Amino acid sequence: MGQEVGNRLDLPFVEIEEIVHRAIKEDVGTGDVTSWCTIPADLEVRGNIVTREPGIAAGLIVAAEVFRQVDARVRFTCMVQDGAPVDGGCVLARVEGPGRSVLCAERTALNFLQRLGGIATLTRRYVDAVAGTSTRIVDTRKTTPGLRVLEKWAVTLGGGHNHRMGLYDAVLIKDNHIVAAGGVDQAVRRARALAPHTMTITVECETPEQIEAALKAGADIILLDNMSNQSVANAVQQINGRARVEASGGITIEQARDLARLGVEIISVGAITHSVRALDISLDLEPEGP
Amino acid sequence: MGQEVGNRLDLPFVEIEEIVHRAIKEDVGTGDVTSWCTIPADLEVRGNIVTREPGIAAGLIVAAEVFRQVDARVRFTCMVQDGAPVDGGCVLARVEGPGRSVLCAERTALNFLQRLGGIATLTRRYVDAVAGTSTRIVDTRKTTPGLRVLEKWAVTLGGGHNHRMGLYDAVLIKDNHIVAAGGVDQAVRRARALAPHTMTITVECETPEQIEAALKAGADIILLDNMSNQSVANAVQQINGRARVEASGGITIEQARDLARLGVEIISVGAITHSVRALDISLDLEPEGP
Amino acid sequence: MGQEVGNRLDLPFVEIEEIVHRAIKEDVGTGDVTSWCTIPADLEVRGNIVTREPGIAAGLIVAAEVFRQVDARVRFTCMVQDGAPVDGGCVLARVEGPGRSVLCAERTALNFLQRLGGIATLTRRYVDAVAGTSTRIVDTRKTTPGLRVLEKWAVTLGGGHNHRMGLYDAVLIKDNHIVAAGGVDQAVRRARALAPHTMTITVECETPEQIEAALKAGADIILLDNMSNQSVANAVQQINGRARVEASGGITIEQARDLARLGVEIISVGAITHSVRALDISLDLEPEGP
Amino acid sequence: MGQEVGNRLDLPFVEIEEIVHRAIKEDVGTGDVTSWCTIPADLEVRGNIVTREPGIAAGLIVAAEVFRQVDARVRFTCMVQDGAPVDGGCVLARVEGPGRSVLCAERTALNFLQRLGGIATLTRRYVDAVAGTSTRIVDTRKTTPGLRVLEKWAVTLGGGHNHRMGLYDAVLIKDNHIVAAGGVDQAVRRARALAPHTMTITVECETPEQIEAALKAGADIILLDNMSNQSVANAVQQINGRARVEASGGITIEQARDLARLGVEIISVGAITHSVRALDISLDLEPEGP
Amino acid sequence: MGQEVGNRLDLPFVEIEEIVHRAIKEDVGTGDVTSWCTIPADLEVRGNIVTREPGIAAGLIVAAEVFRQVDARVRFTCMVQDGAPVDGGCVLARVEGPGRSVLCAERTALNFLQRLGGIATLTRRYVDAVAGTSTRIVDTRKTTPGLRVLEKWAVTLGGGHNHRMGLYDAVLIKDNHIVAAGGVDQAVRRARALAPHTMTITVECETPEQIEAALKAGADIILLDNMSNQSVANAVQQINGRARVEASGGITIEQARDLARLGVEIISVGAITHSVRALDISLDLEPEGP
Amino acid sequence: MGQEVGNRLDLPFVEIEEIVHRAIKEDVGTGDVTSWCTIPADLEVRGNIVTREPGIAAGLIVAAEVFRQVDARVRFTCMVQDGAPVDGGCVLARVEGPGRSVLCAERTALNFLQRLGGIATLTRRYVDAVAGTSTRIVDTRKTTPGLRVLEKWAVTLGGGHNHRMGLYDAVLIKDNHIVAAGGVDQAVRRARALAPHTMTITVECETPEQIEAALKAGADIILLDNMSNQSVANAVQQINGRARVEASGGITIEQARDLARLGVEIISVGAITHSVRALDISLDLEPEGP
Repeated sequence: MGQEVGNRLDLPFVEIEEIVHRAIKEDVGTGDVTSWCTIPADLEVRGNIVTREPGIAAGLIVAAEVFRQVDARVRFTCMVQDGAPVDGGCVLARVEGPGRSVLCAERTALNFLQRLGGIATLTRRYVDAVAGTSTRIVDTRKTTPGLRVLEKWAVTLGGGHNHRMGLYDAVLIKDNHIVAAGGVDQAVRRARALAPHTMTITVECETPEQIEAALKAGADIILLDNMSNQSVANAVQQINGRARVEASGGITIEQARDLARLGVEIISVGAITHSVRALDISLDLEPEGP
Repeated sequence: MGQEVGNRLDLPFVEIEEIVHRAIKEDVGTGDVTSWCTIPADLEVRGNIVTREPGIAAGLIVAAEVFRQVDARVRFTCMVQDGAPVDGGCVLARVEGPGRSVLCAERTALNFLQRLGGIATLTRRYVDAVAGTSTRIVDTRKTTPGLRVLEKWAVTLGGGHNHRMGLYDAVLIKDNHIVAAGGVDQAVRRARALAPHTMTITVECETPEQIEAALKAGADIILLDNMSNQSVANAVQQINGRARVEASGGITIEQARDLARLGVEIISVGAITHSVRALDISLDLEPEGP
Repeated sequence: MGQEVGNRLDLPFVEIEEIVHRAIKEDVGTGDVTSWCTIPADLEVRGNIVTREPGIAAGLIVAAEVFRQVDARVRFTCMVQDGAPVDGGCVLARVEGPGRSVLCAERTALNFLQRLGGIATLTRRYVDAVAGTSTRIVDTRKTTPGLRVLEKWAVTLGGGHNHRMGLYDAVLIKDNHIVAAGGVDQAVRRARALAPHTMTITVECETPEQIEAALKAGADIILLDNMSNQSVANAVQQINGRARVEASGGITIEQARDLARLGVEIISVGAITHSVRALDISLDLEPEGP
Repeated sequence: MGQEVGNRLDLPFVEIEEIVHRAIKEDVGTGDVTSWCTIPADLEVRGNIVTREPGIAAGLIVAAEVFRQVDARVRFTCMVQDGAPVDGGCVLARVEGPGRSVLCAERTALNFLQRLGGIATLTRRYVDAVAGTSTRIVDTRKTTPGLRVLEKWAVTLGGGHNHRMGLYDAVLIKDNHIVAAGGVDQAVRRARALAPHTMTITVECETPEQIEAALKAGADIILLDNMSNQSVANAVQQINGRARVEASGGITIEQARDLARLGVEIISVGAITHSVRALDISLDLEPEGP
Repeated sequence: MGQEVGNRLDLPFVEIEEIVHRAIKEDVGTGDVTSWCTIPADLEVRGNIVTREPGIAAGLIVAAEVFRQVDARVRFTCMVQDGAPVDGGCVLARVEGPGRSVLCAERTALNFLQRLGGIATLTRRYVDAVAGTSTRIVDTRKTTPGLRVLEKWAVTLGGGHNHRMGLYDAVLIKDNHIVAAGGVDQAVRRARALAPHTMTITVECETPEQIEAALKAGADIILLDNMSNQSVANAVQQINGRARVEASGGITIEQARDLARLGVEIISVGAITHSVRALDISLDLEPEGP
Repeated sequence: MGQEVGNRLDLPFVEIEEIVHRAIKEDVGTGDVTSWCTIPADLEVRGNIVTREPGIAAGLIVAAEVFRQVDARVRFTCMVQDGAPVDGGCVLARVEGPGRSVLCAERTALNFLQRLGGIATLTRRYVDAVAGTSTRIVDTRKTTPGLRVLEKWAVTLGGGHNHRMGLYDAVLIKDNHIVAAGGVDQAVRRARALAPHTMTITVECETPEQIEAALKAGADIILLDNMSNQSVANAVQQINGRARVEASGGITIEQARDLARLGVEIISVGAITHSVRALDISLDLEPEGP
């Protein structure tokens, strides 16, 4: 019923080995003294990774990689897939292998599952709020340093979409850039002239005049930051399909629903990565049978 | 009034350059397209890093390192010290330098400050709850993979203490180890015989019998996990100074206060690192003067 | 008259130190035996980096980094800026410092300057061919493994623009993807639904039917690969501004001129990075004066 | 008929995993968006890596490593061996596996094959020019930064030999060293006294007097740089077997033939690594059968 | 009779791959020229790793990793276990595989076995000297830079125990710290207040007054450095079980025996890692049978 | 009188930063708890690095790098130069700076100085034994994994010379290679044909017939391993200047003298790197003056 984890291509796989290696090194350091002292070298154990509350499963292929790197003899079998909604008490995966290795890897594996599960679960609540509309819930660059690629992957497991990955893959002109460039028009025109033709240009606008200037200069997306619902409604009407509309700024789940109805296509939410409660998950070893 | 950041020896400094380098690489990648397109190469800017809510400042020397790595010409001046309690609207640091560089480094610096500030701030609330007692609030290994050294440092900035850093620097015998070793007595005796003489031995106990066995075998610390206040009180009385007492397991701020009064010396709290709300902090550029 | 090299923000700077470090390590290994054996430790030298043929200067800030890493006491002064057109015999930079260090760094610095100069110079010939039109000459992913960021930077120094940096920052649907997805329509719709909203979608089309399907499904850019000028002309007419038009496939400088006149907005050329003749550049030490 | 790639000991294998890892990371970054969007996760494909022009195959074991690192499930079967002369239209290797993985790895694998193939092919033309003599065509240190070990391996696949790998494994005294040391005699004697006894000493000489001094001081090899054929002939006669003779300096294929006949034992050619046209190679997916 | 090497969890395994990789890279560099030149690619060989003198076997799992990384086709079979006492002429392991690979890996594997074997052998002599007492022979931080984790592991294979691994996992207050802190009392109290509760505190004491102050301030271990046997005896009597007692300072095997009888619990010896004679071990290839 | 350490070009500098970084990371890990706990942040200290026995100073520029990496504010002043013969009680260097930083770096710096000093000192004893002859004492590849470049540098500081650095920079044909190749003649001819022309070829010979074959095939150096003095004398006579002569195999200082007199040009000694007693060196802090 469970399945071996093999294909890692669904996730940005290039980084995963290094991130996991770093995490293990950080926790294990010069060795797991307790397991080495107290557990016989040849003891085999069996256990389940179990949720303690409902949520979205996220990070199972990362957890599998943790156990693999610690000891390739550990068998890790997924019982659900990354992205699956689960209840409390759900067995996410089964692990079997040398006792020292299983306990050595436990905490690092759980740390990934709990954080990524927390992100996917919170994202899902936002996504559910805009269900039935064409609005996307997207993430931001407010991620934990060193884990962005995994955290943004967890957002997609929760049903969200990704915004740009970093400063390098899209143009997002904010108020500071506008001031520095000497105005919306000039900033957008320069970006249009210099940026790779494959990149879209988003412009943060605060006034109808800025919106008009941005549209004329060729902006692809207008970003409305920290605006009232009414202001957003006005802006959507003004833009009228000439560009896509994105809203951001401390948006709650309730606001997300309202903004979606107003025709905002993209809602970016920092909280789904920067202020997450860990999903409660643990590893339960099975008592040995007769 | 502010001071240059120079001495990094207060923090486990060996890792800091690598962690910051990784974070910048993750965000900047092949380059900050927006700044490059829209900001003139020779434009100088000046700005303040400001809190938007009260809390504990944490991570200023990390933020300083971010700006330094992005461009050594940026001047970063701390206005408060790491660990200082601050109000909303407080200027944590001033930055001056090339506009492209300052904006390029902004998000990465803030990501560190917001997460570490969130940890220090939440820790402080626990520490305040046990004020006037000799009880320590300590962290756990439930940290974000790759950032443990910084997150545990933030705990100390909030007034907390550190538990072991990883599996390598102390012995902590949990129920799984006890089962695997064939009982408390055997587990503790093996650890006493094999572990380095510089390491303490903590034993998780669930019954008075286990506590007695652990004490006789030479445990240094008895860990009481997920127990009621009454059970903890009984255990403290039974132990009666023969070992130190630690409590853990989803402990709230209110419970922390109660446990401290019952004589628990060490309270370990996972939430201060695994379920943190980011402290709200931003960078405000100053408009250029006349 | 020359200027010190300080600001590296014009180039994707995160990688540069590592690329240069790797190059030095590769060449110097366990030490420059010849310089150590034959040159006195305290001998100071002075020299010029000089072109032996006309072209575009490219890579001076990389060369500066090479000398800096080998020995921070070497003074490297740029006499022209990266991107400047130069004649043969032009002094690109002056170097002064310990003789052992200057000669140790020489070859690595020249290897960068010659390759990047070759790229910029060839790019410029294409760019000149389409001068007076709004057509962009852009690069491809056919770059030397490990040097993409520098080679694409050299393209911009030659007046070209960059295409996507890699597989991660834009969607480019080729014939293989179309077959795998079951048709143009399905491929583009899936990409539109799943890809980040900040990414553009380019579709390689071979027939008028495919072009029509791609446009209807929401393609941003139509890529015409290895087509005759006549076919390109027909396609441009069919597209008629509903998407941007890109051409590729072994395009010569002469063809580039023709395609630009036909209204192709983007011409991507693999040869400017994969089949480049090095620009002839050398380091001439000055004889010591009296 | 084809053969699995297993033994990597023919090539300097220590570096290969890292070079390939870097190349994949550079191209794939945070993920191959196009393949992920448009190709079903379970689609299997089959294809051939095919030459579009005649040349020398080079880099197949590197290409194999690219596919292996991207996805160990891809089967890569060499149809010819590295170093084999091939016609246009020749199948170099067959690949089968998950469609997303095959397309993800394609460009990186081809970039290696095209560059290394270009080097081996050009080298072979020089080697053929001196066929029937005992003259060696050797490379220089004018290689692409970061790829030296592969490029020098490609030279051997084309029938050439390697010169020193870097500054660390042989002594090569050039005019600058001679000036700094105060003359040929002093430079060579110092090198003879200090350099490891396992290293040979090559000296660049411009006059008969220098040649005589170098020979007396114990030079192993006399390097004649940028000399006319007549001058080379005179020098060979003067040296008369007392040292080996090397020629260098923009040597064309025709000149190589002449120099070989004059008795030059070693001809070093920078162009075979610094000014190479990529060999035209592509991956053709097979249409799925019925 | 021999056994495959599989489980690496007995050794601090996180570092082992990197240490071995570095060692191979250092020795093999751009390739094993001699093996490549002289040994046919398809020649298989078989050999034994044999001791030339009695001692303690140490490092077999490291040697196994060396051969594995050089060529996964080499079969490495341990004939004894790490930690076993062996005579001269004892076969530690058998190796079979491609001749080029076996000879390429030979020196690096032997370098590990000889150094670690030397450490374990010398440690054992100290351990034997205190046999029958409860005294531990422990190591110090005087290890070879970069190999500490392996050298400390070798100490345990020789029957010794480990002291702290580094500056991070225990508190050891030396005379310099005492001076800087303004006295024993103040130094120990500050450490007691600030250090993690899991760490023990060792204090180096020179006088009875310092011992008394250290005990009162809560020291766990009293370190007596470079004291006469009589002074140690007096100190042990004074401490009288209130703390553990450690002795150090150029202690010879004979002194170790005396100190153990005096009741010193811990004897730390720098020489077992900093002044070790390599154990004589070699690889003997078997002549090919008929 | 002392001098700042600036120029690192006398030593193979590319590796030094990484080796030192690794060593510090290994020792300091997550931080120097003792110094942090007991020493005030602003306390400045001053001390001397002093020998406790006579020997050759080696590693001062490495020690300087250790202090620099730990804290750039520490001032490190060399009082003697690397390679200088020193008595016991000699001040090698002075250090001044923040107390926490100086004590944090102490052990790592001393570990380098003691090991490298031990190597240089033992080498010097061999070199002195052959003084007055033209014989070279050279090292082997029997070095500590990860430190070869430094250990071989220490050999030169003791007056020795370096043998090849690794498997990549010279050809050394041993008995195993000869067997595998099918005889001396074939092995040497293949090496002569395939190895780079810059590499010398050394052949280990056991009989006069092998010596003759090696010379005829073009060997540059004949290696005599584990031979009696008489056999060596015979071999030297037979070779008679047709190749250089090297001896090896557990050679003692006394034997070295004899072999030098017999005309052996090169004596390679493994013990000077694999069985070294650390030179006794310590850091003495100065008491603060009034």
